[in-house]
Formats: sequence, structure tokens, C-alpha cells
Amino acid sequence: MKLYDCQGAPNPRRVRIFLSEKGIEIPSVDVSIVDGDNLKPEYLAVNPRGMLPTLELDDGTRIDEVPAICTLLEAEHPEPPLLGTTAVERALVLSWDRHMELDGMNAVGEYFRNSAPLFADRVVVGRAGDAQIPALAERGRRSIDVFFDRLEARLAESEYVAGPRYSLADITALCAIDLAGFASVPLPDDRPQIRRWYDVVNARPGVCA
Amino acid sequence: MKLYDCQGAPNPRRVRIFLSEKGIEIPSVDVSIVDGDNLKPEYLAVNPRGMLPTLELDDGTRIDEVPAICTLLEAEHPEPPLLGTTAVERALVLSWDRHMELDGMNAVGEYFRNSAPLFADRVVVGRAGDAQIPALAERGRRSIDVFFDRLEARLAESEYVAGPRYSLADITALCAIDLAGFASVPLPDDRPQIRRWYDVVNARPGVCA
Repeated sequence: MKLYDCQGAPNPRRVRIFLSEKGIEIPSVDVSIVDGDNLKPEYLAVNPRGMLPTLELDDGTRIDEVPAICTLLEAEHPEPPLLGTTAVERALVLSWDRHMELDGMNAVGEYFRNSAPLFADRVVVGRAGDAQIPALAERGRRSIDVFFDRLEARLAESEYVAGPRYSLADITALCAIDLAGFASVPLPDDRPQIRRWYDVVNARPGVCA
Repeated sequence: MKLYDCQGAPNPRRVRIFLSEKGIEIPSVDVSIVDGDNLKPEYLAVNPRGMLPTLELDDGTRIDEVPAICTLLEAEHPEPPLLGTTAVERALVLSWDRHMELDGMNAVGEYFRNSAPLFADRVVVGRAGDAQIPALAERGRRSIDVFFDRLEARLAESEYVAGPRYSLADITALCAIDLAGFASVPLPDDRPQIRRWYDVVNARPGVCA
């Protein structure tokens, strides 16, 4: 196996934390999104959509998209379980992981990519030439607050994002919150449940992966 | 089980086709997105994000997000398999299904919700009060062409979207293409591979579900 990775990028980080929690080490190749290497022919031959991460199997099969990569890793390395252990748990983890993506990651991405000079000419992930849309940055900023509101409500009723156990959904939420912080949108003080949860998940050794 | 459904909406349709392919019938409740019923308190009590579909289990557990719902349905009704039969196949189906969502569904949604009068004051799925962004409609329109390009390339190398067998990824691609047609963006004539595939998947009995 080989992981096409990108230090500093939130989606590759989800897989790195997942691997670390599992105690799996696999060789990786770093592809710099900041330098635009993900849009160069060499990487587009690996992943035509220019997105990261991509997992390459020993037979050359390539799998991208974080939940798909993690589903395969979980099947091959079931312990400790990070995607649930029953059919209903697995569905709930997949669902909550998507909430964290759609509500969290996407909101921060919408805000950040439409406002940061770094992404001025490549606002759409994996694509060059699209201009930033200031109204979309504003909408993304509002959506980050909706994400915080929803996550606060969820963590008032649940120890972890997807239920009583740590899962991929927590990893995704952590990566979204840390990306928001990097984009100068720190977690507000008046979110006690998120802060309670964040202190726990951010203390796990894998977060520095 | 009970399915909160919405006739005419593309994501509920993905689940309806999936159920039909499996030969499963479950009771459903129709929640009209056109009438805004998904944003009313009654449905927000079921799904606080106002999104459809939602699957409610007999013990009251609710699961939303199409891939999560389909993962549970596949676990309980494995035949015929629509999510792959090996760990690698399952990862590939999940990955390709996401490509069809992110490249297809999201592009059409971005275009349609930012331009159709129907969505003038609720351009963000499950949320009221956000204004349409004309530049985003234009970007969505360009992204639909990128989706067609990528799908054409994929179907030049593969019989179905995720490989040699029909899967959820085909259902999602079909629903995205039909939504594009509804939004007055018909499939261009010069996409022979998509047309070859569309004729096959659109002839399956479940598509009218």
C-alpha cells in the first residue's frame, strides 16, 4: 500500500489520524496542494480529479475519498473499531461523519477557499481557473456558525459525535475545527460541549499524525 | 422501518431505486421540499438539519445520508449486492458513489438552487434565508460539464460507474443526470459512453420508483 498524502491538508489528515489510531504505518508520498502539485500531470495520472488523499494498493488499484479509504482500512485492520461494530452503528458513524463533512469541512472550505489569497485562482478543490466568490465566503462563514451550533447540540446529548464511542466522525469534526482555526475562525468560548469533547479528542496521540 | 421521503427530489430517489432493486418495500411518509415542509418544526423534530431522506428504525433510531441508509439496507438485505461484495469492491463503490455526488449532484444542485425561482430564499439545502448567488450558478453550470467529461472518461474504461457491476454509484449518477435534465441541462449528444450506459441503467424497472 502507498498513501498519496499532503501535510497540512485536512482530508489527508483524517486518514493519517485514522491510521495512527489503528497503529498502521504505510509508506506515503507527499503531494503539495499549496504548491499546486496536485494539479500537475504527474499526480493527475494518479488521481484525475486532483484530490487528496489517494490510497494505492499493491496491485495498483487506487481508492480515493476518505470514508472509502477508511472503510477498506477498517476491513483489513478491524481493531480498534473506528466505524462501528454493528450494522446500525456503522450506518450511524457513516452518517455522522458526513454531517461533520457537509456541515463542518465544507463550510470552512467554502469560507477559506473563497477568501484566502492562496486559493485565488483555484477555489474549487482539484481544479484551476475558477474565481473566488466573496458572497460565497460570507455564506461559508455563516455556515461555520451553524456547524458549531449543531455540533454543540449533538455533543450535549452524546459523548462522542456518533455515539458513546470515538469514531471517524470525531476525527472529521476535529479536522474541521482545526481548519477553521487555521482560517482564523476559532471555536467560540460559549460552546462548552464542544470544548469538553475537543479537550478529550485533541489529547489522543494520533492528532499530531 | 419507515422512510421519510420526498417525491421528485434526487436524494430520496436514490434510496427508492435502491429499495426497488432489492425488492424491499417499507412504509414511507412524503415530506414536500417544494412546499417547504422539510423546514417546518414537525420534520425538524425528525431531522434537525431538514434534509431528506431519513430512515427511521423500529426502535426509533434515525439514520440520514444516502450512503449510510444504503449501507444499513445492504447489511440487512445483501441480495442483490449494490455496494460491492469484497472489501476492495465496497471501497470502490463508496468512492465512485461520492464522485457522482460531489461531481454530479453537487454541481447540478449548485446551478439549480442558485438560479431556480423555487429556491430563491433557501438556496442551502435544509436552511432558509440565504440568497442565491448568480456567480455560483454560473460555476455550477461549468461544473456540470466537468461532471459529464469525467463520467464520459470513466465509462470509456468501465461498463458501470464503479466497475463491471451495477451499483449505488450508477443510481447516483442517473439521479444527477435526470436532475440536470429537469434543470434544463440535458446530456449533450457528444457523450456516447454516457448515452450507452444511460440507456442500460434507465431501462431497469426501479428507475420509476
